[in-house]
Amino acid sequence: MSNFTHFNQQGRARMVDISEKNDSVRTAEAISSVMMSPEVHDKIVNQQLEKGDVLAVAQVAGIMAAKNTWNIIPMCHPIPLKGIDISFDWEKDDGQVRLVIRAAVKTKGSTGVEMEALTSASVCALTVYDMCKALDKGLVIGPTYLSQKTGGKNGDYKRDKSASLNVGVRT
Amino acid sequence: MSNFTHFNQQGRARMVDISEKNDSVRTAEAISSVMMSPEVHDKIVNQQLEKGDVLAVAQVAGIMAAKNTWNIIPMCHPIPLKGIDISFDWEKDDGQVRLVIRAAVKTKGSTGVEMEALTSASVCALTVYDMCKALDKGLVIGPTYLSQKTGGKNGDYKRDKSASLNVGVRT
Amino acid sequence: MSNFTHFNQQGRARMVDISEKNDSVRTAEAISSVMMSPEVHDKIVNQQLEKGDVLAVAQVAGIMAAKNTWNIIPMCHPIPLKGIDISFDWEKDDGQVRLVIRAAVKTKGSTGVEMEALTSASVCALTVYDMCKALDKGLVIGPTYLSQKTGGKNGDYKRDKSASLNVGVRT
Amino acid sequence: MSNFTHFNQQGRARMVDISEKNDSVRTAEAISSVMMSPEVHDKIVNQQLEKGDVLAVAQVAGIMAAKNTWNIIPMCHPIPLKGIDISFDWEKDDGQVRLVIRAAVKTKGSTGVEMEALTSASVCALTVYDMCKALDKGLVIGPTYLSQKTGGKNGDYKRDKSASLNVGVRT
Amino acid sequence: MSNFTHFNQQGRARMVDISEKNDSVRTAEAISSVMMSPEVHDKIVNQQLEKGDVLAVAQVAGIMAAKNTWNIIPMCHPIPLKGIDISFDWEKDDGQVRLVIRAAVKTKGSTGVEMEALTSASVCALTVYDMCKALDKGLVIGPTYLSQKTGGKNGDYKRDKSASLNVGVRT
Amino acid sequence: MSNFTHFNQQGRARMVDISEKNDSVRTAEAISSVMMSPEVHDKIVNQQLEKGDVLAVAQVAGIMAAKNTWNIIPMCHPIPLKGIDISFDWEKDDGQVRLVIRAAVKTKGSTGVEMEALTSASVCALTVYDMCKALDKGLVIGPTYLSQKTGGKNGDYKRDKSASLNVGVRT
Repeated sequence: MSNFTHFNQQGRARMVDISEKNDSVRTAEAISSVMMSPEVHDKIVNQQLEKGDVLAVAQVAGIMAAKNTWNIIPMCHPIPLKGIDISFDWEKDDGQVRLVIRAAVKTKGSTGVEMEALTSASVCALTVYDMCKALDKGLVIGPTYLSQKTGGKNGDYKRDKSASLNVGVRT
Repeated sequence: MSNFTHFNQQGRARMVDISEKNDSVRTAEAISSVMMSPEVHDKIVNQQLEKGDVLAVAQVAGIMAAKNTWNIIPMCHPIPLKGIDISFDWEKDDGQVRLVIRAAVKTKGSTGVEMEALTSASVCALTVYDMCKALDKGLVIGPTYLSQKTGGKNGDYKRDKSASLNVGVRT
Repeated sequence: MSNFTHFNQQGRARMVDISEKNDSVRTAEAISSVMMSPEVHDKIVNQQLEKGDVLAVAQVAGIMAAKNTWNIIPMCHPIPLKGIDISFDWEKDDGQVRLVIRAAVKTKGSTGVEMEALTSASVCALTVYDMCKALDKGLVIGPTYLSQKTGGKNGDYKRDKSASLNVGVRT
Repeated sequence: MSNFTHFNQQGRARMVDISEKNDSVRTAEAISSVMMSPEVHDKIVNQQLEKGDVLAVAQVAGIMAAKNTWNIIPMCHPIPLKGIDISFDWEKDDGQVRLVIRAAVKTKGSTGVEMEALTSASVCALTVYDMCKALDKGLVIGPTYLSQKTGGKNGDYKRDKSASLNVGVRT
Repeated sequence: MSNFTHFNQQGRARMVDISEKNDSVRTAEAISSVMMSPEVHDKIVNQQLEKGDVLAVAQVAGIMAAKNTWNIIPMCHPIPLKGIDISFDWEKDDGQVRLVIRAAVKTKGSTGVEMEALTSASVCALTVYDMCKALDKGLVIGPTYLSQKTGGKNGDYKRDKSASLNVGVRT
Repeated sequence: MSNFTHFNQQGRARMVDISEKNDSVRTAEAISSVMMSPEVHDKIVNQQLEKGDVLAVAQVAGIMAAKNTWNIIPMCHPIPLKGIDISFDWEKDDGQVRLVIRAAVKTKGSTGVEMEALTSASVCALTVYDMCKALDKGLVIGPTYLSQKTGGKNGDYKRDKSASLNVGVRT
């Protein structure tokens, strides 16, 4: 079936063939965050938001999104996820408070789970926004990025801590 | 049915009652971005990526995600989307190139479409990452935020351009 | 289009025509339950289960299922849900403990939300089972039934408290 | 990745790591039921319901729900289902008629299919309710429980026939 | 929000703005078919296929697909379907037998349901193929087309019976 | 579990047991088409349609549909797709122009991917219709059929080029 061995000459989208790759354990961890005022932070911690316990709902959303990544990201392969874990940290950041979200995903499959980790962390952050937006529509999500991965032919990846990006907000 | 008129005393999640709110035209626009090296930028523009035309696929993904927001974000109400439009801009940013993604969503419904716009922009950015990750796993998504909204009881919102956030990357 | 005005003469399935019915506020409340040993009850209340906070996760699952009812139950109409609220009660029952689940759903639509309430309560109970099954596979779900509804052409419904059913378990 | 080897110290939800478990054939069978009046039973058997052939539609719904269990139950792992079979029996029960639903599910995967069988039987019962609710809103679903499972590290399970539960209906 | 009033200058995809259009009753009917040998026809009619009653399953699949059209077809608007009806006819055709599938869909919404009818008929035909493919992989689906629509600003449409197309099969 | 070894005696639907079948590489290719006027062809090629680049969107839709086949076709098994590729050709056909769509799907699983290829090609064609229907509602989809498959116990299949079908359009 020539479609799979040659390049798609029409330059359009395809889900690339990974049937030659072996199943192995692979992990990925992605980080996102939500920047908020101390007032919003307090309402979350004290569970005073009308929609419910923000972090509990966000964590469930992030886990379900990881499982649905193949359905949300068009060229992603469906792979059997074996474990998903999301954790939260609070950091003070220049008069604001940042909720740091880490999503760790594990598979035993034939391709990596970077997209599952990134999608999980992103949806977790979006859910935090949704639960808090009645208080403040100015919350900022991200930056969102891959912090590390293990397994697969190309080996492990760990983001260089010194790599920093000047990321501003525009309107 | 007392559950709807009183506060959920167990402090857990609920989809809040909006049956009193009227249908009206509402819009929201969210912004996300993907920061990349000039090399990745060139491959996107010249359509040299194995998975296909990055921006075309990302745009479709963002539109489909907007329609699925109620299914991805647990406490979101399902509302009838009337229009979705995603546009791209390229900006030079400190030796890197930033793809700026704007997702505009419109409804004629009884609640706003902020989450639909934010989810759309986020999934669009995630798809860009997916299409390019074979080249570079260090791409950074976001920040992602609401730039404006119109309609609804609480009136319009426009993000203050001067509001800036010092958002760094950690590992 | 005769298909809609006459009976489907082939006796097969159809989603019946409700285009003549007007939009109005309608509510429904369904009840399900999970019967468990005091030991499982204690683990839930003390949050000692490996998969996490049972009731928090179950509540999110029940809310998301209510929104997906039209997709789970083949002949159900898609209708715009306006509010969903799930609450829990514990009852002692013959040496066992019963978790009683009440799911209340509200719409402003052209058909009732009985199925949304029943599906929500059922999925909430199934999720409780899932979170606890490592401890005990003998948990029993239900009975599950409609406790009341309001709105719609046929008027309100309230289950007769004295109606009882002798429901045993067989293998 | 410490998240997977240590307990989630924040006590929140996670999809537990099953990457160490081997693929093997596993089966599970769950039972649910719908209690109805003889009049409703007769309409089902004679295919006189406006929405169509009740059991045919319910069976399809149950099979599709089994495949979607990982998407309906938040902490469930996606696993490759290899077979699904739903069967029905009618029983007289104290002047009423009970439709007994058995859902049998088979996989060759790394975790059991108890949730798939229970979700399948539940959705099958909910669909029966939906198809009949124009006649009678008082139908009662369940109890729903696991009748047996085979395969997996913890071995087989078979529900003790003598275990009975006094399950009443409340309003 | 200029994105909605001006043309998308980047020539890419968008879900066009229909917020100006009024809700009204609209219907559409699409036709598909499956061409098969008399042997396959007999197995269907006599319900001798291992996967079950072909037409019953196909009808459920077609109804569920109509409701999911907005999720399957990227630029389709989500609209509230009010009724779906699928009927079958058998025709002899040049030594073969053709199963003709008619899918009729009704909405009270702000855009037409042509895509819902076409998707419904197509999925119904695909399901027939799936149920029969163990017998014969040579079944041919379609042609599939819109036979009529009513309602909407552009008025009614009825396919000209004399319009015929010479549609061959190639390999 | 007798349900899996004996025939379903109630003649209803089931997802047949494939747990005995081994994983192996399997491919399938399906063909569909859309027949249109030269005017519609020109608008597609020159990207003058309001909804965007027709072929780019249709290709993404076809790839996503292949991954969702198990969810669209009730008795289909979920299997891990390893590659999906869709290509287009234009053919003149009796004063009209035909867009020929080929969908090639690859798995390493325990059953074939005929349905995935057929569903992918069908949804790709439906999306073309959707993008063009503002211009012309008379476009005809299909015929749609399996052109070839490889792998599996029953060996390869290749449609006989000389097999032709006289497929007309009726109203």
